[in-house]
Amino acid sequence: MSVKLFIPGPIAVSPSTYAAMARPMIGHRSGEFVNLYQSMQPKLQALFGTKDPVYLSTSSAWGVMEGAVNNVCRRKVLNCMCGAFSDKWNDVSLRGGHEAGKLQVEWGQPIEPEALEKALKADSYDAVTIIHNETSCGMMNPLPQLMEVLKRFPEVISIVDTVSSFSTLPIPKDELGIDILITGSQKALALPPGLALISVSERALKRASEQKNRGYYFDLLEFQANHEKGMTPSTPCVALIFALDAKLQEIEAEGIQNRYKRHAENNALVHAWVKAQGFELFPKPGYASVSLSCVKNTREIDIPKLNKILREEYEMVIDGGYGKLKGKTFRISNMGDETSATMKELLDNLTNIIARIA
Amino acid sequence: MSVKLFIPGPIAVSPSTYAAMARPMIGHRSGEFVNLYQSMQPKLQALFGTKDPVYLSTSSAWGVMEGAVNNVCRRKVLNCMCGAFSDKWNDVSLRGGHEAGKLQVEWGQPIEPEALEKALKADSYDAVTIIHNETSCGMMNPLPQLMEVLKRFPEVISIVDTVSSFSTLPIPKDELGIDILITGSQKALALPPGLALISVSERALKRASEQKNRGYYFDLLEFQANHEKGMTPSTPCVALIFALDAKLQEIEAEGIQNRYKRHAENNALVHAWVKAQGFELFPKPGYASVSLSCVKNTREIDIPKLNKILREEYEMVIDGGYGKLKGKTFRISNMGDETSATMKELLDNLTNIIARIA
Repeated sequence: MSVKLFIPGPIAVSPSTYAAMARPMIGHRSGEFVNLYQSMQPKLQALFGTKDPVYLSTSSAWGVMEGAVNNVCRRKVLNCMCGAFSDKWNDVSLRGGHEAGKLQVEWGQPIEPEALEKALKADSYDAVTIIHNETSCGMMNPLPQLMEVLKRFPEVISIVDTVSSFSTLPIPKDELGIDILITGSQKALALPPGLALISVSERALKRASEQKNRGYYFDLLEFQANHEKGMTPSTPCVALIFALDAKLQEIEAEGIQNRYKRHAENNALVHAWVKAQGFELFPKPGYASVSLSCVKNTREIDIPKLNKILREEYEMVIDGGYGKLKGKTFRISNMGDETSATMKELLDNLTNIIARIA
Repeated sequence: MSVKLFIPGPIAVSPSTYAAMARPMIGHRSGEFVNLYQSMQPKLQALFGTKDPVYLSTSSAWGVMEGAVNNVCRRKVLNCMCGAFSDKWNDVSLRGGHEAGKLQVEWGQPIEPEALEKALKADSYDAVTIIHNETSCGMMNPLPQLMEVLKRFPEVISIVDTVSSFSTLPIPKDELGIDILITGSQKALALPPGLALISVSERALKRASEQKNRGYYFDLLEFQANHEKGMTPSTPCVALIFALDAKLQEIEAEGIQNRYKRHAENNALVHAWVKAQGFELFPKPGYASVSLSCVKNTREIDIPKLNKILREEYEMVIDGGYGKLKGKTFRISNMGDETSATMKELLDNLTNIIARIA
């Protein structure tokens, strides 16, 4: 049985993506690979809103998130913590042998610009980690305002995780002044997992060049040196790169602005359904994610039962609450290739099931 | 145009593998994933010749090769260096902040057991890196004899790269006493690149538990902790894991011993062709790889021209020499799904082209 995923990633992968993955294998040091890599750069740069290169890492995003800290942190990093995934960056930073400060808020609350400014003034930091969209609680941080604060701290390299927001709304890297922007293949890009994308500013590369403990596999200077040859440092996940190439062409055909509009409209459908059903969104009003909705289970629905029926009768699945929010929330993704029709189909199914089991 | 790869990896990927990659996407924290992961373990353990778990890393092999050293090296590692890839491990070890001794031989020469013993006696090492099959020069080290030596050095954790030999001949991990055995998806397993496989002994895990600088993404204890739940630490490359699952079923259907026999026979076809054509194998006699043949270009064939015709007229491609062997050698892979018929077709094509251009 094929079950369509409306979870916060991985999500449903389209037949056109599978077809692209089945292109005949090529050598990663061949002219074909170089041509492919270089032809993708302008489209990637347009999506990232940057003139910097976009590197392709054969890993999940956590690999480059760990690597980014190791590449730019001299002594101490500040971790902005607002949910399971941003919290984890503190543990990962400490494991790299760095000092790591915490700017921590309750799940569902955003990192406030004033709090960030205060934290940065309280110590001398080399880098800051910020999650854009906290997948565990469906909260989207006010990234432009946070980046405004960072402009006043030129020594602090910004590392931003956009894994579950990338390509669902504009995140203009250069305009916002983001140094290191990271995303993964398996969220709104609707590709299978296994490929991370990372774009790095010149000043972050300069910082990396002064660091000793960059390692090899996630060394940003290795990515840059190979980028200049149209290659990757190690053997890359060629099939996923074929899939990314096809997806970039689809995004270009749809139009990036249309893609953002579609995600906003699909997200609005979910929000309207939440209200109509008498639920509430979990995050603080004004900070709900545009790509995935974390819904307070105010009606005390049996979420596993809901999802079981959804799976067995409708061949779809949403996600329950993450970690400490299990049972208290459920999560609906509108990332990727979804249309208003497919979102309405999901929401109608949920309505029907809830009417039966509530 | 589809060109079939007879290069030392990636190699040709079969339609059945592509079909497996297109299975509907599943969540990596779902019961389906756990069932898949756990169902693959016995087949993986049979291939690895081990009772230890086999972890799946979403990376190329270099990631876990770097990670393995960081996990078990307290002060100093000994790198056995016999070609471009094994040489690189010295650089990678140093980048991890470790001391790194060199046991270096000329390309084409094996690491001799006596030399290994002498080197290990000359200093106090925590770990040793050994490549089984040196892809750059087609030389296969005498792994059983090297592992015999290591049995006399119980403090030295053995880390063995079998990337381009794995599944082409028996490499019984437990019987040989290998602590950490690493391979990648894109060589003889004939999968697309992007997935590394690693099996780790209990004593290597114990060593890792005493180490501070394991990091996160390649932390062996994270792999073990998640393995116990039937999962991977970070989001895994699910599509490649589907492909691995299908390949393991194919290997089981063929029979592991038949698979080894097929690789030996296909390799013998290449060796016979080399002799008949008046070429010589590059490695020292007795140490030629069974999976890929590095051929001395004794007839001074124009290799790029040979490969151009092979590609354009026959839609196949072999590989030239690596690094300093460019022009002086060429390399023919017999890894993966090749049969005597497909190998003979390749070799006949090469014969025809050489007759025209020699």
